[in-house]
Formats: sequence, C-alpha cells, structure tokens
Amino acid sequence: MRIEADWVAVDWGTSNLRAWGIGAGGEVLFSRASDQGMGKLARDAYPAAVTDLLAGKFAPSGPPIDVLICGMAGARQGWMEAPYLDAPAELGGLAYGAVSPAIPGSRLVARILPGVCQKLSGAEDVMRGEETQLLGLSAMSLGFSGLVVMPGTHSKWVTLAGRRIERFSTSMTGELFEVLRAHSVLRHSVDGETDATDRDAGFEAGLTLGLEAPQRLTVNLFKIRAGSLLSGRRPGWCSGFLSGILIGAEIGGQRDWTGNNEVPLVGGTALCALYARGFAMIGIKTRIIDATDATLAGLKAARQA
Amino acid sequence: MRIEADWVAVDWGTSNLRAWGIGAGGEVLFSRASDQGMGKLARDAYPAAVTDLLAGKFAPSGPPIDVLICGMAGARQGWMEAPYLDAPAELGGLAYGAVSPAIPGSRLVARILPGVCQKLSGAEDVMRGEETQLLGLSAMSLGFSGLVVMPGTHSKWVTLAGRRIERFSTSMTGELFEVLRAHSVLRHSVDGETDATDRDAGFEAGLTLGLEAPQRLTVNLFKIRAGSLLSGRRPGWCSGFLSGILIGAEIGGQRDWTGNNEVPLVGGTALCALYARGFAMIGIKTRIIDATDATLAGLKAARQA
Repeated sequence: MRIEADWVAVDWGTSNLRAWGIGAGGEVLFSRASDQGMGKLARDAYPAAVTDLLAGKFAPSGPPIDVLICGMAGARQGWMEAPYLDAPAELGGLAYGAVSPAIPGSRLVARILPGVCQKLSGAEDVMRGEETQLLGLSAMSLGFSGLVVMPGTHSKWVTLAGRRIERFSTSMTGELFEVLRAHSVLRHSVDGETDATDRDAGFEAGLTLGLEAPQRLTVNLFKIRAGSLLSGRRPGWCSGFLSGILIGAEIGGQRDWTGNNEVPLVGGTALCALYARGFAMIGIKTRIIDATDATLAGLKAARQA
Repeated sequence: MRIEADWVAVDWGTSNLRAWGIGAGGEVLFSRASDQGMGKLARDAYPAAVTDLLAGKFAPSGPPIDVLICGMAGARQGWMEAPYLDAPAELGGLAYGAVSPAIPGSRLVARILPGVCQKLSGAEDVMRGEETQLLGLSAMSLGFSGLVVMPGTHSKWVTLAGRRIERFSTSMTGELFEVLRAHSVLRHSVDGETDATDRDAGFEAGLTLGLEAPQRLTVNLFKIRAGSLLSGRRPGWCSGFLSGILIGAEIGGQRDWTGNNEVPLVGGTALCALYARGFAMIGIKTRIIDATDATLAGLKAARQA
C-alpha cells in the first residue's frame, strides 16, 4: 500500500498552481502542477482545481488532509480573501492569519496564508507569496538580517530582520519587460532570431546604462529603437539591452537600500543570475536561492508555527 | 470658378494623414484628414491615399501641384525612405533632402522631407516630423535658441540654435502611458469612470513624485496598484497619477538640459498644458505652441528655402 502524504503544500500564483505532497518527516513525496492560476479561475472553480490536481493521491475517506496555500488564491479576486498582515510584520505568526474556504465532500482542508501590506503614506505596497518565501529564507538562513531582493514580474526589495519584515518596495521590472516587448514600438527591434552572445552583449550594455542613469529610463528605452534603426543592432542584442536597462534601473534607483553586505536573491535562478551581474557591477555580492526551495521551506515553517 | 490651391502641405504620421491646401499668399484654403496613417498602409497604397484625400480639389489637368510631406511617410517602412539628415543639422536645407515618389496619372507631385538622426555613440536617436515643426518654430520665433520640448508618444527634447538642431533625445513617455494603461496590471486600477477633479489630484501627486524620484520610476509605477488596493484610489486618480509619474520622470530625469530660460512646448495643447505644470513645479516658464501651427509653418518655410 502506498504511503499517503501527511499534508499538501500549495503555491497558487496568478499563472500557475503547484502542489507538493509532504511526508511526516518533511520530505517531498510527490509534486504536481497545472496552469489553473488565479488569472483563469472564477471563485467557484477553486475547489475543483485543487481536488483535480490531487486526484488519486489520497483515499476517498480517512483523516482530514491539511492543504496549506500561499499566493494569489488569497487575493480579493481569488478564492477567498486572506486579509494582509501590516508591515512591519512578524512572519512567525503567518498561519494565524490564514482563512479556510470549504472544499465540500473532500478530505482536503484548505488554509490560505495572508499576504503583507505596507500602509505607510507614500510607500503603500503589497505582496502575496513572497512573505512565505521570506519565512522560508529565514528558516534556511537562521537569523539573517538585511536586504533581500526577489526578482520577478513584480520584484520585491525587502528589509528582513529574522522573521520580521521591516519594510519593502515593489518594482514592476519584469512586467515592464513583457509589455514593452509585446506591445510597444520596441517589438520591431526585439522580435526575431536571437543569439546568446549577442543577447549577452546587449544585456551588459543595457545594465551599464541603467545603473548609470536610472533617472533616464524613459529616454534610455528609446535607444533600443534608435540602435536597431541606426546601428543595425539585432533582435538578440536589443532584447538583452531592454532587460539590462530595466534591471539596471531597478538596482540603480534603489542604491540607498544597499550596503556592503551580501544580498540574497530569491527567485527563478536564471533571472537571479542576471540580477547578480547587476549587483556585481556596483561591488555587491549576492547568493541565489531558488524561489521554489524558499516557498517550500516557508510553507513548512508556517505549518510548524 | 473656384480658386485652386497653389500647393498642398501634408503631415503624414503613423496614425493619421492630414493635408492643407495653401494659397499663393500662404493662406490655408482647405484642410482634410483621414486615418490612412503609415501604420495602416502598404507601400503601394500611398498614391491612392493622397489622391483620394484630395479628390475634387484640383481639376484633372493643369500645371503640376506640389505636395510637400513631412513625417512617417518617409520612414523605411513608409512610402519611400527619405534618408535622415545627421545632427547637428541645418534645417534651412531640409527640402534638399526630400525624395519624390511617383503618383502616376496625377497632377500631384509628391516630395517627402527627411527626418533627422543623431549617430553620436550612446546618444543614438531619430526623429521624423518634429524637424519640420522645429523649422516652423524657428520661423515663428525668429532667432530662438535654446531648449525646445515636444511632448507626445515619443517626446523630443531638442537644443535648437536658430535653424540648427544641435542635439536631441527621445523619451517614450506617451507610449509608456498607453501600454501600461492597456496591457499591464495597472489597467485594473485605471479602468472605469473618471472624474476630472480626482484625475487632477492624482496627476499633481504623480508629478510631484516623478520629479522628486525619476530614478525610481519602476517602483513608483506599482504605487498605483497599491494605492487602489489599500487606499481605495479611484480610476480617475490612478490614471492621473500614472500620467504624472511618467511626465515627472521625463522632466526630472533631464534636469541637466534645463536652465532658467522659458521653454517652448510644441505639441497638442492639452498635453503641453500638463508638461507646463511639471516645468512650473521646478520654476521653469513655458509657452505652448500648437503642433499643427508649427507643422504648417515648417512646411511653408521648407518650401520657401
């Protein structure tokens, strides 16, 4: 007879739904994923999305199975709103802020962790999902205090003190890359065959420019178009340049957050490697923590609390 | 019998085609417009677009009619490429750089004026259409030298010395507003009923923030989302805030271009009025010149040269 997982860890984002069955010793027994992210789901479609994803993993009857969820499922437009904790926020108590939407006729018992908001006037901000990764980072790097950077669609810069979020800010870097690439005049410059060397050279040039002059982002962007019209820059170079300008501006515009300490980068490892190059240019060391590892560690830590 | 126009002035942009019949004394005898901009036209559709627009205005036979065109019709992907003049560029000689695509079986004789490029390494840039407005500004304000700002989809900042373009730069401000409003997560915040007072308050707040911290544009943008989630900011406020952040960043990021002199703003008058508020915040006077007036003055001046 197959051993059932003890509980299920779930990361429910805007685009994707991912679940891991966790054993009594904390080991991952299975993992599943689907494209049933918040962006695609009506409110009443959530119970089926999670039971379908876990189909065959649990016997029809038996003790309740805890399903601990972080991310956008707890947004106002998600499954059930899990009200934000206010920053400065103690992440040790994350699970106390969870909400429990019903999954009728199932052994699964859902709990959705809250996000964190910052109501400070002029620095209003929100996160959902990153707070769980930060709790995970805190569990993985006991006692870490300092700046954490979380590259992504909406990058977060966070001052963490152990399990406490002191303050944070969000940069729309990844989303700017996507909308400019797909919908602006720059699409004519970045569409087409790309080669890695070319792309890398463009990234380096863009990063340098973005770090030097983050205040000129709206001007720097048009150099991509001018570069392809006047200097024959190819799509790979232009695409790398766009990415470099944006990441450079994000880092260069927030120099007042950085000191001399090593900065943990939590995110997809390929994207984090690009940020690491930017920080290296201004003399700051980084270490990369895979976002999935941080999420799992965070869900485990939240459940233990 | 109706008097025929002496020649036709044409502004052929990406989205629109506009034509004015000009009398022997420089007076506008008629004006017509259509949506047959460069963005919609295949190369072989240009002759019909202009003859259709001018239908009924000229007898089938008679002396040739000069049709002087500025704008995107001269782009590589337009009717016929009119190679750029290099900046620094003397606008007095603009008409010498014109190209003449054929309009078979018509009295109309087209000439397309060139744009201007800047090949300076690190400051590569291009314009098409604005050079004609600048020539017009020079004719309207004899001997003006200094900074000219041309708000728009791709705003231009130009150092003009009489009829000479010394240097220029392009800011993607207007296009950023459009793509973010239509395609980013910010659409959830800006879509909906707007009220003018609300919008104005948002614009003022965004302008202040953008001018103070142009280097944080990628971060400032997300405050729109956070503002609607946390502070109940309404769509009008958010839309004004977005506009203010972007215009503020454009102006604030180019403070090294501004001195104490009055700055001519050439563009749509409503948009120019928003820029005027931004410049006023940093103590710089402006005067607004309607882009259509400048274009007509520029086409007249180019033809006389």
